[in-house]
Amino acid sequence: MTSPQRKSFGSDNHAGAHPAVLRAVTEANAGDATAYGDDPLTKVAVGRLREAFGAAAAFLVFGGTAANVLGMSLLLRPYEAVICAESAHLSEDECGATERAVGSKLLTVPTADGRLTPDLIASRLAGRGNSHRVQPRAVEIAQVTEVGTCYTLDQLRAIREFCDAHDLLLYVDGARLANAAAYLGCTLAELAACADVLSFGGTKNGALGAEALIVMNEALAAAVPFHRMQLMQLASKMRFLAAQFVALLDDELWLQNASNANRMARRLADGVTGIPGLQIAYPTEANAVFAALPAEQISSLRQDWNFHVWADLGDGQNVARWMTAFDTTEADVDAFIAAIQETAKRGHAVS
Amino acid sequence: MTSPQRKSFGSDNHAGAHPAVLRAVTEANAGDATAYGDDPLTKVAVGRLREAFGAAAAFLVFGGTAANVLGMSLLLRPYEAVICAESAHLSEDECGATERAVGSKLLTVPTADGRLTPDLIASRLAGRGNSHRVQPRAVEIAQVTEVGTCYTLDQLRAIREFCDAHDLLLYVDGARLANAAAYLGCTLAELAACADVLSFGGTKNGALGAEALIVMNEALAAAVPFHRMQLMQLASKMRFLAAQFVALLDDELWLQNASNANRMARRLADGVTGIPGLQIAYPTEANAVFAALPAEQISSLRQDWNFHVWADLGDGQNVARWMTAFDTTEADVDAFIAAIQETAKRGHAVS
Amino acid sequence: MTSPQRKSFGSDNHAGAHPAVLRAVTEANAGDATAYGDDPLTKVAVGRLREAFGAAAAFLVFGGTAANVLGMSLLLRPYEAVICAESAHLSEDECGATERAVGSKLLTVPTADGRLTPDLIASRLAGRGNSHRVQPRAVEIAQVTEVGTCYTLDQLRAIREFCDAHDLLLYVDGARLANAAAYLGCTLAELAACADVLSFGGTKNGALGAEALIVMNEALAAAVPFHRMQLMQLASKMRFLAAQFVALLDDELWLQNASNANRMARRLADGVTGIPGLQIAYPTEANAVFAALPAEQISSLRQDWNFHVWADLGDGQNVARWMTAFDTTEADVDAFIAAIQETAKRGHAVS
Amino acid sequence: MTSPQRKSFGSDNHAGAHPAVLRAVTEANAGDATAYGDDPLTKVAVGRLREAFGAAAAFLVFGGTAANVLGMSLLLRPYEAVICAESAHLSEDECGATERAVGSKLLTVPTADGRLTPDLIASRLAGRGNSHRVQPRAVEIAQVTEVGTCYTLDQLRAIREFCDAHDLLLYVDGARLANAAAYLGCTLAELAACADVLSFGGTKNGALGAEALIVMNEALAAAVPFHRMQLMQLASKMRFLAAQFVALLDDELWLQNASNANRMARRLADGVTGIPGLQIAYPTEANAVFAALPAEQISSLRQDWNFHVWADLGDGQNVARWMTAFDTTEADVDAFIAAIQETAKRGHAVS
Repeated sequence: MTSPQRKSFGSDNHAGAHPAVLRAVTEANAGDATAYGDDPLTKVAVGRLREAFGAAAAFLVFGGTAANVLGMSLLLRPYEAVICAESAHLSEDECGATERAVGSKLLTVPTADGRLTPDLIASRLAGRGNSHRVQPRAVEIAQVTEVGTCYTLDQLRAIREFCDAHDLLLYVDGARLANAAAYLGCTLAELAACADVLSFGGTKNGALGAEALIVMNEALAAAVPFHRMQLMQLASKMRFLAAQFVALLDDELWLQNASNANRMARRLADGVTGIPGLQIAYPTEANAVFAALPAEQISSLRQDWNFHVWADLGDGQNVARWMTAFDTTEADVDAFIAAIQETAKRGHAVS
Repeated sequence: MTSPQRKSFGSDNHAGAHPAVLRAVTEANAGDATAYGDDPLTKVAVGRLREAFGAAAAFLVFGGTAANVLGMSLLLRPYEAVICAESAHLSEDECGATERAVGSKLLTVPTADGRLTPDLIASRLAGRGNSHRVQPRAVEIAQVTEVGTCYTLDQLRAIREFCDAHDLLLYVDGARLANAAAYLGCTLAELAACADVLSFGGTKNGALGAEALIVMNEALAAAVPFHRMQLMQLASKMRFLAAQFVALLDDELWLQNASNANRMARRLADGVTGIPGLQIAYPTEANAVFAALPAEQISSLRQDWNFHVWADLGDGQNVARWMTAFDTTEADVDAFIAAIQETAKRGHAVS
Repeated sequence: MTSPQRKSFGSDNHAGAHPAVLRAVTEANAGDATAYGDDPLTKVAVGRLREAFGAAAAFLVFGGTAANVLGMSLLLRPYEAVICAESAHLSEDECGATERAVGSKLLTVPTADGRLTPDLIASRLAGRGNSHRVQPRAVEIAQVTEVGTCYTLDQLRAIREFCDAHDLLLYVDGARLANAAAYLGCTLAELAACADVLSFGGTKNGALGAEALIVMNEALAAAVPFHRMQLMQLASKMRFLAAQFVALLDDELWLQNASNANRMARRLADGVTGIPGLQIAYPTEANAVFAALPAEQISSLRQDWNFHVWADLGDGQNVARWMTAFDTTEADVDAFIAAIQETAKRGHAVS
Repeated sequence: MTSPQRKSFGSDNHAGAHPAVLRAVTEANAGDATAYGDDPLTKVAVGRLREAFGAAAAFLVFGGTAANVLGMSLLLRPYEAVICAESAHLSEDECGATERAVGSKLLTVPTADGRLTPDLIASRLAGRGNSHRVQPRAVEIAQVTEVGTCYTLDQLRAIREFCDAHDLLLYVDGARLANAAAYLGCTLAELAACADVLSFGGTKNGALGAEALIVMNEALAAAVPFHRMQLMQLASKMRFLAAQFVALLDDELWLQNASNANRMARRLADGVTGIPGLQIAYPTEANAVFAALPAEQISSLRQDWNFHVWADLGDGQNVARWMTAFDTTEADVDAFIAAIQETAKRGHAVS
């Protein structure tokens, strides 16, 4: 599927690891280290994550789904529910992991652009105190959302205030948090300030495979080690997860990586704007471009390029998702734009 | 805790990764690859695992606990139970992961040396058909066991026959399966022949962190991808798990690694035999030496050496567990033997 | 809340037990009986349920939620999902019991009148074979639905055919199955023919508290006793649940009870039709009348009468739910109609 | 199996309901009542239970297993474990309900006579703070135990003190709490004082089927309604459960019932003492007599009498369990004693 010559726009996890990450892993391989996180490098990684986020605690896990489920385990008892967007990764793309691990229901809300608002959250608060209904206890938002949009700091504050006023805890799925920080030009700590618990994704940002769970609300930290183990997320040779985060935090490599990915998405969005029959479907704020175009044209493009069809709009129009990565180059983007233009012309010719 | 000069005998996961594994991971980093296992390298790794085991299917996961829980998910409904040794990792060292993920009870049996026998299994079969009792449905054994012993092929066959005769499925925790193969001088396929499902550990055998779930019973394979995802074990950049297994399978590196570890344990056991006050507690068949010796002597040794205290025998005697790894050297072992002899002498002098 | 003089229209479970049911319970109290269902009366009840439904097996449980969750336990593995109406009791009114007991996600669909159709079911079948998505495995419908409508036998057959064509199992929540049979003029067996598993409600039909799980698909029956026990639904003195069903089955008391309730709802619906400002919201097919009327009028009525507000339509209009029971009389209904007319007049006068 | 002429000694749940209980249920059937516990009679029952126990809250459920699982849901997170006797109903006789509903492991301890002691509890406290191990968080004891023994108030206090000193919560399975109060001559409040949560059994004490969950630790009460619903234990027509408890509490009927049962067990134990070859296996403190006698004699007796074989001692000796109920009469007991004597004589004659 992946063509060796052409950059994949399929997902930011089609990219490999950043060379600095691999180097750090290789260097971490010297000698023995006590397992399960009781090693010096893990202490460094955790310390630096805590510092960057102003967090009470930080924990490393294998993947983004795991971070989300671990977060939900901290926030919910089985009869309590989390309010999230209908498009949330937690709800749509994790094979029901939260339902199984926590036993909780997800209360989903349709959104215009992947972002919850206080009003949308309020729409799922019915039934509190009624024992026939699951009890809303937490809100989950993704920063970046599934459709590539970001919450502004003001929007985050508004949600936090709503949560405080309504006795709700807030979890942020930060699989692409770096891209949000790059877009908003703010620090990780500023993004995290709204949350009780959040994840910080390494994998889509140039790691081999590593995510961090960041606990802002100190009262929730003590249970993490046990949930992490019980949820099969305690790495045996933890130093190799730690090394990846140390590399990403050095010289803000995470920010450089995210900034490049965002810039390439911006370039792609700008480059395709004005192509006849193509409409940008969501604001391009991070490293994804969503574009509506004829289904035929999409099929034609996918013969040579790797990307996902996000939605079928009917009437022969589909939405394509094009993602950029830390290692996407201007040449990659320009070649892709040219190909899109080419298929658009052919499409025109045909019709 | 770990002294940089002295080899850790704390666990085989205190060792780092074999250089060939790191090399393979680095090589796998070239270009893009479709995520979640739909990449060429994963196909190679899975194909070679299937071939080595004569298996219906093979799947990569992050860790050994995960492989065990995934295996249990395939074999058990919530009211069904697995019979295992009281010392089983599944029961003692996984923070109740099976209970949470599957909802099932573990029916444990005390064993003399970590090994179940048909008679021991039979002792937990009461209550079948009685709806007040959990229903025994599977047997779990570890090869190598938690106390470093191995099941012979005959013992495995006897358990398999018992399982067949009593409508039980068989799971083998193979976190150290390589060490068992090295000890028994048999193939992985010969070890796997008895099992419906088993794990094959990479992490303790020189990987960065990777385990395989091997499915011998074809009827059980179709559910694995969904359980794996729901149990948060689907690696995003799967190629990096695959690369590790490809490296371990190349030229039977797994066997070389295990053989070295076993040989070093044998050397250690031989070297400490005859030290006054020291008794080998379990047969040294793989890469662990269990030795009973005075608690004081253990404390003294642990000031300089990293290893676990396995059990307190009372009367001032404890059992120490000394594990060797793929990269333990003869010099490491000899230095450790010398230290044990030294503390034994001092111990004598004192008493 | 309940006025002793005025019949409750709040729910069919506000009514007590039918005298014949109480009599049967009292008679069942003679002498000893082996516990947990191994008694003669339970055998009679189960035998007569199997006969009435043409079922492979029948099991008694305490409540309707329990029957639903037990049914889901038979049909689903944790990564498998059930497709149901957004309004389904299973989803809205059971505090997430299925999510907790089974670990599965519910795939809900908005419906016009509580009824699923093949097209609506088809709308939730996406993602089959994709391990990131829960796998649709079963369909759940309620007969009678939450808004008092019934599936015709043709509609049931169409859903069954769709399920067969798409490898889906079918569960019917029959908490008010008796009312559907009374409305459709068909047998219980005809209603059950479409289902793999269904429930048959006693509680809302004049029992003290008893429901039956009816298993049509023989392959699913063997696991029931264990799930029932593990889900805390095995009655110790089962004869007292059995007695209730024997009484309801005698002389088709269940049908008499349901027919009366339906007739009273029909009488109520007819009696309020034409009242200014009042609109029947859903077809009155069983024992519930849903009527849209001004919120003020509803508040006024509820000062004296017990019933639920079902929905807020905005613009000062709400939907009221009025339920009738086996023991609702014509006089009860006529008094209620008069009260509704009275508040409607006052409402008019005010505006 | 049950002979109509001969009283069952099989279990106290082989007895029916006390006439006063049935009367109360019948009286509760007058008119409508709001469902799910929002009715006057439930308020009365709950108020009187709270008063009798000095409890923060009380809740009605369908059965004893449900009360236990609901209790565990209040006390445990999935990675936390409960320490209980190996013979505990929770562990042996509930088909793994706690494992499924809570996800927790049970840490069992062998006991001499069904009673835990501080020392026995202490033996399962290892591994606290170690994330590989489940974390002991609660202790479960049964009062009366599974082998018919009672904890004295001093023993309860000692366990409570141990729990307080070791940060453990205490749950008491009181399926036969009435029998313990009768034996010890103390109040329900005195028995409950040690506990955070306990159950109070109605079913084995003359109810049709009803148990109460008594919450002493106020902080734990708020979650009960939601767990109760999610665990399928919220009775629709709750007044009928309430009526049973009101009847049992009137004039301390619960105590009369338990006292009779205990007295009959005492009479039985006294009557069989001295029969050659028969040994009382556990102290007869409540309403059960455990007697070791030849297996042949047991088989012979069971042709005419209903009771359970508790254990096989080997060497042809088994332990029989003989239970008495609220309605067991002196004549019942004397007839049974005569039968036992008769089989003993025949046994002698044969051998």
